Amino acid sequence: MRIVEIREIDVPLSGAISNAVVDFSHHRVSLVAVVTDVRRAGVPVVGVAFNSIGRHAQGGILRERMIPRVLAADPATLQAPEGGLLDPARVLACAMRDEKPGGHGDRAAAASALELACWDALAKHADEPAYATIARHFGTVAAAAGVPVYAAGGYYRDGDEVTALRAEVREYRDAGYEAVKIKIGGLPLERDLRRLEAAIDVAGGGSRVAVDANGAFDRDRALTYAQALEPYGLRWYEEAVDPLDFALTAELAEAYGGPIATGENLFSVQDVTNLLRFGGLRPDRDLLQMDAGLSYGLTEYAGMIAEMERRGFARAAALPHGGHMLNLHIVAGLGLGGCEAYPGVFQPFGGYTDACRVEGGLIVPSDEPGFGLEAKGGLDQHIARLVA
Amino acid sequence: MRIVEIREIDVPLSGAISNAVVDFSHHRVSLVAVVTDVRRAGVPVVGVAFNSIGRHAQGGILRERMIPRVLAADPATLQAPEGGLLDPARVLACAMRDEKPGGHGDRAAAASALELACWDALAKHADEPAYATIARHFGTVAAAAGVPVYAAGGYYRDGDEVTALRAEVREYRDAGYEAVKIKIGGLPLERDLRRLEAAIDVAGGGSRVAVDANGAFDRDRALTYAQALEPYGLRWYEEAVDPLDFALTAELAEAYGGPIATGENLFSVQDVTNLLRFGGLRPDRDLLQMDAGLSYGLTEYAGMIAEMERRGFARAAALPHGGHMLNLHIVAGLGLGGCEAYPGVFQPFGGYTDACRVEGGLIVPSDEPGFGLEAKGGLDQHIARLVA
Repeated sequence: MRIVEIREIDVPLSGAISNAVVDFSHHRVSLVAVVTDVRRAGVPVVGVAFNSIGRHAQGGILRERMIPRVLAADPATLQAPEGGLLDPARVLACAMRDEKPGGHGDRAAAASALELACWDALAKHADEPAYATIARHFGTVAAAAGVPVYAAGGYYRDGDEVTALRAEVREYRDAGYEAVKIKIGGLPLERDLRRLEAAIDVAGGGSRVAVDANGAFDRDRALTYAQALEPYGLRWYEEAVDPLDFALTAELAEAYGGPIATGENLFSVQDVTNLLRFGGLRPDRDLLQMDAGLSYGLTEYAGMIAEMERRGFARAAALPHGGHMLNLHIVAGLGLGGCEAYPGVFQPFGGYTDACRVEGGLIVPSDEPGFGLEAKGGLDQHIARLVA
Repeated sequence: MRIVEIREIDVPLSGAISNAVVDFSHHRVSLVAVVTDVRRAGVPVVGVAFNSIGRHAQGGILRERMIPRVLAADPATLQAPEGGLLDPARVLACAMRDEKPGGHGDRAAAASALELACWDALAKHADEPAYATIARHFGTVAAAAGVPVYAAGGYYRDGDEVTALRAEVREYRDAGYEAVKIKIGGLPLERDLRRLEAAIDVAGGGSRVAVDANGAFDRDRALTYAQALEPYGLRWYEEAVDPLDFALTAELAEAYGGPIATGENLFSVQDVTNLLRFGGLRPDRDLLQMDAGLSYGLTEYAGMIAEMERRGFARAAALPHGGHMLNLHIVAGLGLGGCEAYPGVFQPFGGYTDACRVEGGLIVPSDEPGFGLEAKGGLDQHIARLVA
């Protein structure tokens, strides 16, 4: 299997939402197609993926650095030693040639789209859903019957926030979600608590509601919120502080009895190792939310999971940021703790195909070959344009 | 002072050199011009800067994210409250709007070129060299009489490495450099030591020679080299290990008695804070090499220096990566420990103008307004093309 062409376009996110830090109305995402020389049923096997959500399209880095390196490589150097199929880890290593160490930011997102597109190609070549390919490769047991899923919403919108939030959480319950996540930090504490209490009331208890500050809090506000939040017995308290402030994360873990969650803005095994070594996270309760779609792809992400396990965390403590088909297959394939969903926002990338049912708090991956992105309404037309 | 236009081009580095990790023959650098509405002697004041060396051109991030944000902003929000001049910190904050926390990589380099171009515009507007503007802004005493400089070379080249290295170090001595740095890690230890001994012999002692592994060593090799290097009494042992492996850096600092240097691949105050908190560096000897041209510019870099001082390091312990006019003015303006020079390589960005004399191990900034990039042979033609 050889790569004969790599295409990329960037696609805007629809829906004008914002968290405590970021307005997403100008966000775009890179959609990448890896065209191979292998044909199935008369058409080329084309792997497709994107760089998750929230860290911008990365067309510049893809076009100027990574794609030329991969296309210039001897194809044999990109293949697994046995079988002649593409090896995503080798494609990644090639894409990263002449890159200095450190600085795991935008390039990690650029590489992700490319590396994950190789996994999509491998799964399509095997005519199976990506979770099956992933599980076979990593020697894991795929959760084909479904993985836990929660609805991430509760963004700040203009208008009566409590009434709108109650309606939103009710919609999630009606759609089969048993847990929800809402944003905090965009309003003063007292108003945030009124929103939280409304969400807990509709969701049916604090253990069904997580809160997310998107790294916006300084020390005082993080600890003030920790004290105010603890009595609610929340599902988790997410990204209270700067994701790289490991000392403050440790202080927060010391101060807050409930589960805390972080990691969605760490993009390398080394950064995650630092979090686990210095961040005071507790293997018996805390959660890690790194996202393969922002972190050089599945190769690096699997290294993060291995590092977690070496340090006493179960892989069920991994709940990736990024509620979409890529992570559904990764979570199911690696047997991780669960998936995020963004019903109605971050389109056309967010969420799942209609065939992925949400039942009893689980989401069940569908059987389309690969990540199944071509079956996702709204995304299909962009993929058609990309591979046309 | 308002920004009326921002232009960027990328310029290839000439000279096919490599260190233990990276081949620079495909490297490009972003050159940015900030065109203002202010005129001096009938021509617009145009600030010019680039994103240092070694982390690639960042045209995609500049064109797709940062430049549109700055051009869309209300000009008053980019000005200092008093005087109406551009405020580089506000320009940076605007360029970073809707960027999530963490992930300090490529975007930090993109922002640097833009932020530093604002400093160049301010200095040109004041008709003074940039170091004077910088010193006045930060309340420091400018080292107008010159700053310590060393010649960074000793790259691996094909052919007889020892003979070529002796000739290279002799050239640096003849040019007025009293200290040199050579690469290590690209050959087995014994051959690296033969190169090192040759360099020490020509330079006139181990205290005149630093070595740089460019983050390539694993634990065993870093510690093996540490043991082998210590008897030479070197100037410093640079970036032995992954720049983000703070635990291993601490282990190395424990094992190696001489000065160690690192930081050129850390691009935010938070990453530097982690290095200082967890990396075991010793304020009485170790050196920090962060580079404003890769780290969101001078605003963030000054924050790094402040964090160093809070933790007991003198600002003389700061020796920025990146031997070029931008850092010469920053080192002179902030009163830091010294500058790197790359005689003959990384052109047209590396090195200094002919008016910047090297005498007795010091380099003396020249008097051109701003960073003086227009006076640098080879770079002048690219700037002329950019601002034409």
